[in-house]
Amino acid sequence: MLSGAVRVFNERGYDGTSMEDLSRELGITKSAIYHHVVGKEELLRLGVDRALDGLFAVMEEVKAAEGTALHRLELLVHNSVLLLIDELPFVTLLLRVRGNTKIERKALARRREFDSLVTEMVEQARDEGHLRADVVPAITARLLFGMVNSVVEWYRPRRGDDPQDLADIIVAVAFDGLRC
Amino acid sequence: MLSGAVRVFNERGYDGTSMEDLSRELGITKSAIYHHVVGKEELLRLGVDRALDGLFAVMEEVKAAEGTALHRLELLVHNSVLLLIDELPFVTLLLRVRGNTKIERKALARRREFDSLVTEMVEQARDEGHLRADVVPAITARLLFGMVNSVVEWYRPRRGDDPQDLADIIVAVAFDGLRC
Repeated sequence: MLSGAVRVFNERGYDGTSMEDLSRELGITKSAIYHHVVGKEELLRLGVDRALDGLFAVMEEVKAAEGTALHRLELLVHNSVLLLIDELPFVTLLLRVRGNTKIERKALARRREFDSLVTEMVEQARDEGHLRADVVPAITARLLFGMVNSVVEWYRPRRGDDPQDLADIIVAVAFDGLRC
Repeated sequence: MLSGAVRVFNERGYDGTSMEDLSRELGITKSAIYHHVVGKEELLRLGVDRALDGLFAVMEEVKAAEGTALHRLELLVHNSVLLLIDELPFVTLLLRVRGNTKIERKALARRREFDSLVTEMVEQARDEGHLRADVVPAITARLLFGMVNSVVEWYRPRRGDDPQDLADIIVAVAFDGLRC
């Protein structure tokens, strides 16, 4: 039911989706939905939390990795792309949250917390001398995840595609650039 | 009125905004709004067209520039960042369009047309030997503009900030990478 609700939210927009819409699109009665959740707000919360929990799990795993901060930052970008592809509808929902309700504002606060952890990692990699000295950590963190997150706008899984390939491309572009 | 309507659309979401909301937020009567436009759809169309016309004007100007395709591509990224900052609310509105109405689908079609012009430019720069040989033009075009477009999510103009600085940073990251 959660996956179905998240699909409907992504198609119609969360604000534009009523319980009637959910009932019709999921082919279950409203009372059956209310049996599981108190309303569409709870479905939103479960959906964005799934994406956020995934991102924080990637962050924890990466922070525990050996090596330089640059290595951890590359791993973070790589594994975030894999998570995004794996949880595509949930991350899509998260990235469209604008902050009109308490649940949305809480999700935005967790996103900012994630961003500040990325910013710290960029700062550390720069201080270790592995990133250009003119790098501004907060802007760099946002540009890195701007590129990563943009994948939700166009990525559609196709048979035979290996998500690792896209993760590798994004790491290469971000750290080595396009020029040859 | 257009700027005000676009601000309300960006805050509440286009689908979640009624003519009543526009009337209240803009402090003008509904009939005064209807005197100028046939409905909120026309305000959406005027808003997204302003962003799209700006992007295509940048594209035309850049295509006419002398030099290599790589030079034109760098100029395109640079000037697109400046346009995005200059027309921030309009580009924000455009980037949130999902295709639920005819006007939105037309805007998405123009965005795809723009993307394919970027893809052609990436292909040409690669064929001229100035981009890494492993670059996939369509993916690269999307990642480049993924990074550019992500600016709408966090950029807030501050006194003394020079938009040129951000445009320069984004060109440097995209083409030379973060590593030193």
